[in-house]
Amino acid sequence: MIAVDAMGGDHAPAEIVAGAITAARDLHIRVAVTGRPGQLRPLLARLPAAADVYIEPAEESVAMYEGALAGWRRPRSSIAVACQLVRRGQAGAVVSAGSTGAIVTTAKLRLRLLPGVARPALAVALPTQPTPTVLIDAGAIADPKPELFIQFAHLGVAYAEIAFGVAEPTVGLLTIGSEPGKGNKLARRAYELLNADLPAHAGVPISFAGNVEGGDLLARKVDVIVTDGFTGNVALKTLEGTARFASDRLREVLGASRAARVGALLQRRGLRELTELFDTETYGGAALLGLEGTVVIAHGAVTARGAAAACRLAAELTDRQITERIRERLGSGRGGLFLRRSDRGVVGSSGTAGR
Amino acid sequence: MIAVDAMGGDHAPAEIVAGAITAARDLHIRVAVTGRPGQLRPLLARLPAAADVYIEPAEESVAMYEGALAGWRRPRSSIAVACQLVRRGQAGAVVSAGSTGAIVTTAKLRLRLLPGVARPALAVALPTQPTPTVLIDAGAIADPKPELFIQFAHLGVAYAEIAFGVAEPTVGLLTIGSEPGKGNKLARRAYELLNADLPAHAGVPISFAGNVEGGDLLARKVDVIVTDGFTGNVALKTLEGTARFASDRLREVLGASRAARVGALLQRRGLRELTELFDTETYGGAALLGLEGTVVIAHGAVTARGAAAACRLAAELTDRQITERIRERLGSGRGGLFLRRSDRGVVGSSGTAGR
Repeated sequence: MIAVDAMGGDHAPAEIVAGAITAARDLHIRVAVTGRPGQLRPLLARLPAAADVYIEPAEESVAMYEGALAGWRRPRSSIAVACQLVRRGQAGAVVSAGSTGAIVTTAKLRLRLLPGVARPALAVALPTQPTPTVLIDAGAIADPKPELFIQFAHLGVAYAEIAFGVAEPTVGLLTIGSEPGKGNKLARRAYELLNADLPAHAGVPISFAGNVEGGDLLARKVDVIVTDGFTGNVALKTLEGTARFASDRLREVLGASRAARVGALLQRRGLRELTELFDTETYGGAALLGLEGTVVIAHGAVTARGAAAACRLAAELTDRQITERIRERLGSGRGGLFLRRSDRGVVGSSGTAGR
Repeated sequence: MIAVDAMGGDHAPAEIVAGAITAARDLHIRVAVTGRPGQLRPLLARLPAAADVYIEPAEESVAMYEGALAGWRRPRSSIAVACQLVRRGQAGAVVSAGSTGAIVTTAKLRLRLLPGVARPALAVALPTQPTPTVLIDAGAIADPKPELFIQFAHLGVAYAEIAFGVAEPTVGLLTIGSEPGKGNKLARRAYELLNADLPAHAGVPISFAGNVEGGDLLARKVDVIVTDGFTGNVALKTLEGTARFASDRLREVLGASRAARVGALLQRRGLRELTELFDTETYGGAALLGLEGTVVIAHGAVTARGAAAACRLAAELTDRQITERIRERLGSGRGGLFLRRSDRGVVGSSGTAGR
């Protein structure tokens, strides 16, 4: 079962519930929608056959403008209740289109950390071929210690393997120059750590391919790109904003004259594929990894289609047992933690994106 | 006169010299090309009427893979000689398509800092309408102190006024959330400083409009976007890489079938404009600001067309006296330095992108 925060998102709850119903029907899964029953019941009644969608009541909700503090302030919010369903083992994953800061804090409060994980990180799939490129951290930790980059690499590799079937994923470090030693202090130190003899620290080695730059995010040079949550979030939003800008300009060109519109008819199949490639709703959203239970964070602006895609991603990650696979990769069963226990307090004290 | 580093760039010296000749002819300006006379003479001879282009000999050059250290290692490099022409008052600006790290270090060594400026920063123009948006710092200082963001704002505002004729430019801070307090430690502290009562510190106030996100780079919300050189460089390259990715996919769609190609013919005018909008060669390059003399850094991969555009930008900035205007804005003539002298040592000690 998937737990869907029905109250999070610009178009919540109507579009979120509609997406949850589509996902339940198409994927033959059970979905719990969390939120105010008075608002959700009419939505379920109005929509077609929703036998496998039920309401889990949550009287509070977190507004889109609220940040990380809402995680503490609202213990009975729709996102907190969704996490609670995972904590109690009733659901395998959470889907929310709410405020990222609030979701991350709530998930950290409600769900246990996996053994060997210091802090959860946000992974997104960038639309490259033949398989997507994983960018991690895309915004969970704004000021990570360099040691956390190793954890980002392990989580990203597990995600690439499980979500996209990549064998032995390679890892690149996002910085500003391809040679070693390029970057700010944080990236330079992270390079040293990633380039060190990792098998000594971790059960499973990382295949580190060196530096990549902003221009390589869509160039499919590596399978996983690690960065701090500040840079990752700026890069992700820059990429999405540029893609949106390009589609808007293209739409103007295609509609500029009668001749151009006729031309667009002749290209309609390719243009449809192009639109889909750049539509963030296609991809389901970002996955918060490293907790006992996965949280898929959809775009705040998702419609029913994007909400359904987020449910699909959550269901796939649950089916393929991403939590178990990360546990295997990082846990003590494979020869020890890659972060010593004494490091965890220090790592835990740095800032959070949503704070 | 403009001094052009003929040896910097992937296609140097042939494309650079060709671009310099075009610029000299079209703009009726004199251009000095610096480099090995033995290599440059045949290029000048082969090309049409180049009366206003002359060779300034420089026996050394900096390879594209060399970083900041080359600035010290090669005192007679083509970029150093070009800077020397500005230092001696013979040229108004330098153009180079060489390694950014090496150009920045060389320029800092060869050209004096303007009064009130702690370190030079790199400004780029993003292709928005009706006027470009200035992003600063795009890669000169990877680890700036937060105090430097105020200087970035002043330099960016001067650039927007002078290069694009924007009246009273507004300034935004690049971070990961629109509310105050979002971001990493550096961005949060920079916000406080930018939001403080600036007229008390500087001769000319800054019109600070708050936070912007990666998705706003092309949204024309503000005239100037300030950020650290690491984030700015990642964002700029992400933007360029995404635009390139989008044009490549579009080209595939337009050439996918005979019908699609016919369609493209019907749209050819609009498509040409679109191509130009996303072609980095159209914009001339980044401007290193804050020194006694401007340095325009063109893309490493420029062809003659891009090199000519970089010369045009350099000539415009010289004509409009950008150095004088920055001096007026930041100098003691308008009521004092915005950075106290005691701050400058501290500010100067942080890292450089190319190091």
